[in-house]
Amino acid sequence: MVMLSPYQKATLSPEAIQTLTGIPTIPFASLVSPYLASTKRIKSLRETTSAKLLPIEEDIIARHNLTVQKTTIAHVPVVIISPPQPNPAYANKVLLNFFGGGFVMGSARERAALLMAAEMRIRVYSVEYSKSPEVRYPVARDEGLAVYRQLVADMGAENIAVMGSSSGGQIVMSMLLMARKEKLPLPARVFLCTPSVDLSGAGDSMVSNEGRDVMPVSLLTAIVKQNYQPVDVDVVDPIYSPVYAEYDAGFPPTVITVGTRDLCLSSGVRMYWKLREAGVKAELLVGEGMWHGFNWAEAVPEAVVVRKAVREFLQEGFKD
Amino acid sequence: MVMLSPYQKATLSPEAIQTLTGIPTIPFASLVSPYLASTKRIKSLRETTSAKLLPIEEDIIARHNLTVQKTTIAHVPVVIISPPQPNPAYANKVLLNFFGGGFVMGSARERAALLMAAEMRIRVYSVEYSKSPEVRYPVARDEGLAVYRQLVADMGAENIAVMGSSSGGQIVMSMLLMARKEKLPLPARVFLCTPSVDLSGAGDSMVSNEGRDVMPVSLLTAIVKQNYQPVDVDVVDPIYSPVYAEYDAGFPPTVITVGTRDLCLSSGVRMYWKLREAGVKAELLVGEGMWHGFNWAEAVPEAVVVRKAVREFLQEGFKD
Repeated sequence: MVMLSPYQKATLSPEAIQTLTGIPTIPFASLVSPYLASTKRIKSLRETTSAKLLPIEEDIIARHNLTVQKTTIAHVPVVIISPPQPNPAYANKVLLNFFGGGFVMGSARERAALLMAAEMRIRVYSVEYSKSPEVRYPVARDEGLAVYRQLVADMGAENIAVMGSSSGGQIVMSMLLMARKEKLPLPARVFLCTPSVDLSGAGDSMVSNEGRDVMPVSLLTAIVKQNYQPVDVDVVDPIYSPVYAEYDAGFPPTVITVGTRDLCLSSGVRMYWKLREAGVKAELLVGEGMWHGFNWAEAVPEAVVVRKAVREFLQEGFKD
Repeated sequence: MVMLSPYQKATLSPEAIQTLTGIPTIPFASLVSPYLASTKRIKSLRETTSAKLLPIEEDIIARHNLTVQKTTIAHVPVVIISPPQPNPAYANKVLLNFFGGGFVMGSARERAALLMAAEMRIRVYSVEYSKSPEVRYPVARDEGLAVYRQLVADMGAENIAVMGSSSGGQIVMSMLLMARKEKLPLPARVFLCTPSVDLSGAGDSMVSNEGRDVMPVSLLTAIVKQNYQPVDVDVVDPIYSPVYAEYDAGFPPTVITVGTRDLCLSSGVRMYWKLREAGVKAELLVGEGMWHGFNWAEAVPEAVVVRKAVREFLQEGFKD
């Protein structure tokens, strides 16, 4: 479990304290991470994670009365999540989601996609991109790009907002940089939730939040390195680690969320400044004492507030 | 010195690395802090600090050709810092500053006041409030309030922006809460630099950034407790620890700056959400890998960028 002093507990909601203190610790994480992240163990990692998340996802679907349909767009599997009573303002709008899970786990029907559909009352197209180690970078990104290209042709970029959590954030940014390269119009808004936009391992929080976040930094780093990273990639290549890319004012307004105990705190902070300095409208939302991906803990008050702020930001982009 | 791994150095400017690695460590800080913070040692603490800052301040004054005048407003000493060529847009505007220094050190002619005057090309009125232990809370706050009241009468609240760093941030917020109580009009904008708005010791960063910031958390906490805190105060009293106060949309737009290794990171984050949730226009600016008060290291690129963003925010408030 994560250790919390009384001074830290004082600023957290009871729900957040319960989550943080309920997380099992991995002893000697930095030593065992390379083993836990080995390609042959990914299958069991997936099974453990999805077994834990499945009932939570089903509960969200049931309570919010969501419709979940499978389809393919540009030959890529996509899950369409629809709320029972869509906001009329979003009748022709879509939120294109890229799930998180360190590139090796997770699914398009993740909590992020479900909660956004339910709370924003908007259709979410969630891309079921291919995971690692079966494929490595840039396959998932290119699948996403194919879907995006098709959606732009079908409905117009101005009616699309793009989002991704953690590894999904890397795929989003890498995809948008490629879209820019081929002169595709960019979406109305971008939402990066605790984005892994620096796969080189750099960042203050990659060191300082080790042992404070819900998952060891060393484990995530090992997962990426051993399963997703191509042999010949430069880890600071701007399309692989998009915090190193150059941006200009033509990039869409972007909201970024992170937590203070989040291993991606620094990635989010740096991405914010990179965009802001380039003249992009950017907003950084920081959750006090919050962990990697806290947004999707539905009932945690700190997450509720941040999700509301994100919706406000996305809504602005869909105003005519 | 502060320890920095290669992954942390990778995201810092050379200037920032030099600052962080040049700071002498206090061995066994948490054990010796109560002694170092004892009332009888404050005099030497002041002398050491001001000897170090004096040449830096004089250099800023000379290079930027600033005029520094002493006056009194409402019987309180105030230092007026004027730029050589004020921005015509700010001819009738003033930035009212409250210096930092843990309530026991510092002076009105601090770098924060000088740099704001030089870079924003605006007159800064910097209050030379009484320090602790000679006086305790709320004397400094009430001196500030007397100055603010007089300035409001003389020039109108809409022409005043108020700022404070660290302990100065507590004085600012406490003062504005008192001003609101007496139905004084509030200033056009507020700037809180790494504000100590929670003197109870609560906050994630008060624990997690111990040993990572430029000054031990235990030392600052001991200084406040032993010298500033009145015997009978409730440390979560909303006027003493303003993060606990209630705000409404009538509070001025507020910009808050913090760093990721800043002991006040959590205070800034929490203050941001408190204001935002109350309907106040608030902006949080987070410096990657930055320390408590990094803003005022003139040449550090991370600080240059944040100071520019702050000026943009304040400028908006002075538009007619």
